Amino acid sequence: MSTQVAEPGPALLRDALAEAARAVNAELDRLLPRPDAPHGRVQDAMRYAITVGGKRMRPFLILEGATLFGAPRARALRAAAAIEMVHTYSLVHDDLPCMDDDDLRRGQPTTHKKFDEATAVLAGDALLTLAFEVLADPATHADAEVRCTLSARLARASGGEGMVGGQMMDIVAPQHDFSPDDVALLQRMKTGALFEFSCEAGPILARAKSADCERLRAYARDLGLAFQIADDLIDATSTAEKAGKAVGKDAEAGKATLVSLMGVDGARREAVRIAERAAAVLAPYGPAAEALRRLPAFLVERDA
Amino acid sequence: MSTQVAEPGPALLRDALAEAARAVNAELDRLLPRPDAPHGRVQDAMRYAITVGGKRMRPFLILEGATLFGAPRARALRAAAAIEMVHTYSLVHDDLPCMDDDDLRRGQPTTHKKFDEATAVLAGDALLTLAFEVLADPATHADAEVRCTLSARLARASGGEGMVGGQMMDIVAPQHDFSPDDVALLQRMKTGALFEFSCEAGPILARAKSADCERLRAYARDLGLAFQIADDLIDATSTAEKAGKAVGKDAEAGKATLVSLMGVDGARREAVRIAERAAAVLAPYGPAAEALRRLPAFLVERDA
Repeated sequence: MSTQVAEPGPALLRDALAEAARAVNAELDRLLPRPDAPHGRVQDAMRYAITVGGKRMRPFLILEGATLFGAPRARALRAAAAIEMVHTYSLVHDDLPCMDDDDLRRGQPTTHKKFDEATAVLAGDALLTLAFEVLADPATHADAEVRCTLSARLARASGGEGMVGGQMMDIVAPQHDFSPDDVALLQRMKTGALFEFSCEAGPILARAKSADCERLRAYARDLGLAFQIADDLIDATSTAEKAGKAVGKDAEAGKATLVSLMGVDGARREAVRIAERAAAVLAPYGPAAEALRRLPAFLVERDA
Repeated sequence: MSTQVAEPGPALLRDALAEAARAVNAELDRLLPRPDAPHGRVQDAMRYAITVGGKRMRPFLILEGATLFGAPRARALRAAAAIEMVHTYSLVHDDLPCMDDDDLRRGQPTTHKKFDEATAVLAGDALLTLAFEVLADPATHADAEVRCTLSARLARASGGEGMVGGQMMDIVAPQHDFSPDDVALLQRMKTGALFEFSCEAGPILARAKSADCERLRAYARDLGLAFQIADDLIDATSTAEKAGKAVGKDAEAGKATLVSLMGVDGARREAVRIAERAAAVLAPYGPAAEALRRLPAFLVERDA
């Protein structure tokens, strides 16, 4: 048997991402409530926020992880929809005037600009809540222990000790003299924790061995770090037109990032090094993990 | 055997409420993260928001329901802490300048006044998330199906089709000509849904018969309605000093309430009628349900 395999190029990875996005968008459409008077405004805003985003990177990770370990796609799609709801809620709240005060997200008005601040706060709250409703539902897995594990991990990853805690660090950063270690912790909480959940959800759904879960988490940690550095590089070097959002905000706000600490070239080298390490972790899974292995470099090379 | 039983008077009900509050406060102190740099600000704000409130009415309902059907107290306390986290998050977000814009809550600065708006948004998000982490944990019940049922019901009660949807209706109310039925729907979503969860959580933890769960939900619907009318009466008739918060806000904002629709006396009569109906529903449980039976009238008579 030949070890030669057909390797997907960047075009194939883009196709795989697009296919995952289509599938999770259809699932989100099924799961989100339909606008229905007289509280339809919040449902409208939930759908708007979900529709404006994005690459559906986190759903892609869940779907790929589920396929790699043999979890049924219908279940993985529900977990993928749930993670996208949590990711979207965090963007809606982060964009608020009292937080990052962003008017644009992917070239579209942010939710509080399209609706109003109160509606944006409520739509974010409702998306976060719906994610846990989706995970707790028997349709997500026949075994309630699996559903509880997913709920507990997602809560941990997205709460005060995860994503929300990272956002808090980000906000207080200008008043602190953060070390590179502090910045790494901030990014691991703010972005990394949700990536970790996205990568372990597939193995959890498939009841994979704990060694496999740990391997996927190690991959996720580096993937999240590479993704965050790439995001900071876009903020430091891209144009608003290209990025579809305001750029140069980190430097303006005096926010500590690896780019501010290491410079643009140093940060880019670090991102490439981490992306290669992430890919190497998945070597034991062979061609079945090819798309996941290519993803870190793809994210580092993106410019929007 | 005599059917004569020692009936707890209002003082005994107050004692029972105070005891439940002490127990759930200790549980909340165990479950809430301790401020720990550098994201300690959000943990501080979570603790502040929890500490400022309140009567711990919803935890009381869970603890009483659990006792009535024989669920272990340690489990009921975790569910009680979770509901109080959700209730508190909703107050923190409702008090924001873009929502009700309240500076005071129980005579104390609201969370965004004590900290800042961004921290208040994040503390609310983290409290909501922590509630689902607590429910999914095996310490809440050995049977994961029970944990999932609690998570799903709490999500449903507090999300876009429950509490958040009710808050959305409340915000758009001044632009609508709401009928008494619309107002009843608003109140059932905004306040009633969480009361319903609080009353069914005990029976769920005890795996009580579905007829018992339904009876407790029927009680909860009327309790929530009576509570909301009493709240609106306080807003219409009390002073800020007595109520510990700004009053007269509903009329000022042109909000539709049963008080604005029926007048003060009509609304008070309606509240008393509903409180009596709520108490009657629990008659089959005899003296064991005495505290729950007395609660609706107690809530209607309160002035703060």
